[in-house]
Amino acid sequence: MSVELGLRAEGMLDELGRLSDKDGLLSRPYLGPAHRRAAELVQGWMRAAGAETTINPVGTVVGVVHQSGSARRRRLLIGSHIDTVPDAGRYDGMLGVVVGVLAVEELRRRGAALPFDVELLAFGDEEGLRFPEASIGSLSLTTALPQELLDVRDEDGISLREALVAFGLPGDPPLGGLRYDPADLIGYLEVHVEQGPVLEAMGAALGIVTSIAAAARFRITVTGAGGHAGTVPATMRRDALVAASQMVLAIEEAALAAGPDVRATVGELVIANAAANAIPGLVRFSLDLRAPDDELLARARAAVVAGIAAVATARSVDIAVEPEYEGSATVCDPALSAALARSVEGLGLSAPRLPSGAGHDAQTVAGAAPVAMLFVRCRDGVSHRPEEYAAPADIGLAVIALADAIGALAAEPDPRSGAAAVG
Amino acid sequence: MSVELGLRAEGMLDELGRLSDKDGLLSRPYLGPAHRRAAELVQGWMRAAGAETTINPVGTVVGVVHQSGSARRRRLLIGSHIDTVPDAGRYDGMLGVVVGVLAVEELRRRGAALPFDVELLAFGDEEGLRFPEASIGSLSLTTALPQELLDVRDEDGISLREALVAFGLPGDPPLGGLRYDPADLIGYLEVHVEQGPVLEAMGAALGIVTSIAAAARFRITVTGAGGHAGTVPATMRRDALVAASQMVLAIEEAALAAGPDVRATVGELVIANAAANAIPGLVRFSLDLRAPDDELLARARAAVVAGIAAVATARSVDIAVEPEYEGSATVCDPALSAALARSVEGLGLSAPRLPSGAGHDAQTVAGAAPVAMLFVRCRDGVSHRPEEYAAPADIGLAVIALADAIGALAAEPDPRSGAAAVG
Repeated sequence: MSVELGLRAEGMLDELGRLSDKDGLLSRPYLGPAHRRAAELVQGWMRAAGAETTINPVGTVVGVVHQSGSARRRRLLIGSHIDTVPDAGRYDGMLGVVVGVLAVEELRRRGAALPFDVELLAFGDEEGLRFPEASIGSLSLTTALPQELLDVRDEDGISLREALVAFGLPGDPPLGGLRYDPADLIGYLEVHVEQGPVLEAMGAALGIVTSIAAAARFRITVTGAGGHAGTVPATMRRDALVAASQMVLAIEEAALAAGPDVRATVGELVIANAAANAIPGLVRFSLDLRAPDDELLARARAAVVAGIAAVATARSVDIAVEPEYEGSATVCDPALSAALARSVEGLGLSAPRLPSGAGHDAQTVAGAAPVAMLFVRCRDGVSHRPEEYAAPADIGLAVIALADAIGALAAEPDPRSGAAAVG
Repeated sequence: MSVELGLRAEGMLDELGRLSDKDGLLSRPYLGPAHRRAAELVQGWMRAAGAETTINPVGTVVGVVHQSGSARRRRLLIGSHIDTVPDAGRYDGMLGVVVGVLAVEELRRRGAALPFDVELLAFGDEEGLRFPEASIGSLSLTTALPQELLDVRDEDGISLREALVAFGLPGDPPLGGLRYDPADLIGYLEVHVEQGPVLEAMGAALGIVTSIAAAARFRITVTGAGGHAGTVPATMRRDALVAASQMVLAIEEAALAAGPDVRATVGELVIANAAANAIPGLVRFSLDLRAPDDELLARARAAVVAGIAAVATARSVDIAVEPEYEGSATVCDPALSAALARSVEGLGLSAPRLPSGAGHDAQTVAGAAPVAMLFVRCRDGVSHRPEEYAAPADIGLAVIALADAIGALAAEPDPRSGAAAVG
């Protein structure tokens, strides 16, 4: 049953994965030709699942499954995104969109009557790689976006306005008016591949996201003294790379001490005027820091910066630590998360809780509605690469778990109204 | 007296320093227009000092001071180079050439009669930056160079043959025939700025070089596992940069343990496909290793490689260590070095012994004659940069010390013939 659904999902993901703006690899930027074809494909699936569909003014595919018993027109949102990074895998956000469609089909098959509408969402811009702004799809639902956003341009000089027209939409949509009234929203559920190795290591097909990480990005500059590799004795050196290397280890140590859910990564490191026979005098490196909550991020940040400073003092080098970005954590809604967990456990599976270190549309939607996320195990933790893979059996389980959770929410008192839902 | 000589040297170095192939900075590659003008300037100085001069077929300025009492025509060589790195300082090899000219003048002023000829040499290619082969000037005196060397080309596709013609020399010199007969050579003395901070730290103006370092160059590749910076827990990572950082520190530790004269430098380090939000999966770095003798280099090499391998095992990453270059140490001649040391001490100075971590023409000439080197203190250990500086007072002391050493060698039994020199 779930395996069948998983195989159907795989077929749909294959079909979506063939829609690319580049030959031989999957690349589907926001509002490109492949995005248009993907949106139409998804729209067809939603319609077949019984939804009333539209492509909204910023290119989000919206499919509303109206329920006859739904008097108050409150809506449960189910979504993810269909844009991709360059040379992407076929799962990522697409998996969440496909699972949402199949869960709605499954509910229809069961003849379930829900006391709310279900709205399927396939956002066109989560990766944020085409325009300076990211998550325009989900952002427009939660924020009154300024009209000037239409003037941002991509690397080729094409404005968002021009891209919308090329996509077949009006060039001057009232961005500010796309915002949903929070009072209408029951919540937002998103299914996504984990993009990490935790579930695989636990032997768990599915996991419940506790929060989407708080994140901070820094740029660190280490200034020591250059010199000739052959002539300066070790004890007289102020080698910027040796100091930076010790800082990389101090960062790892401080992050480990801060807790198992803290992530610290030095992803870029560059030696200025590097030569094999020259002592590095100046090194720049990046630091990406994430934690499941803001308080832990602040603690980890303080520990890491103290670690870097201690190395600088010991090595007699100068450091500059420049913050580049800082974002708060999004804590997932306990009631929605519990509903997901119970339906996973109802399948005889464990439902481990784990934080999401990567960003998701759920983070943006959280500004307007309670959110919860279901992670699907992926192979080797690989994501954003062609090798990205989730097993059909796991995807099928996600479909059933999502359908069950929606069904269970229908039977529960509405957490937002405080009143009993109409069953 | 020595200060006067130092100021004269400074004036000559200023004059030389103005001859550049680039505006606003000193850049004088082998056989370029500035090298031609520099060779002519040096030739004039040598002639004024009483030498019979020529520019030899590979562009070396040769000035022979014939001594009337010199029956056997044996020669003491005094030399260094007049090519520069791009954006060079004004000292480096030029200092040795100028000090040689002034020492010969000083000997003439003293009316010293020597039992051998003195041959001043200003090599045109020590840095080896224009053609694939380095030290062509000194190499041609010690090795029967193959005629095909004339076909090597620079980055602009100009062959050595074409460059010689552009310089005003015959395009087909008999390279193999430039070799000196070792039996004719008493030895080779070279004065050079230290290019390191050791003499300055000791408060010594001059130093005696014990050996020119054995050197080895490696390229190390560290393969771990990439991943998303936000999703992979610290304990599940095989971060190639964290491993490489620990290797950089292991290299430092192993080199320090091997001895104070061992130099280990990681000058280049590159993360493949680096991104601030990605765990580094592959890192490549260079390792430059130097030691005053071959046995110590071999020991240091073994310790460093063992240190790298231990980190690789502990971090579960793969490593490849590829040797790129290995060169033996050149031990300076004890008798010639003692003559230099005695003349330095005769000036009331200490004559500290130190290894040379950088390469020099002396290294090449050592294939045909005993060699010794006198180092002159430089400011902050800086070399190969516009800030390179040696004080006129120190340069003046070097002139006197070199002249005194040549005089002393004239009074000693010829170490090569075993017979007493003709006084």
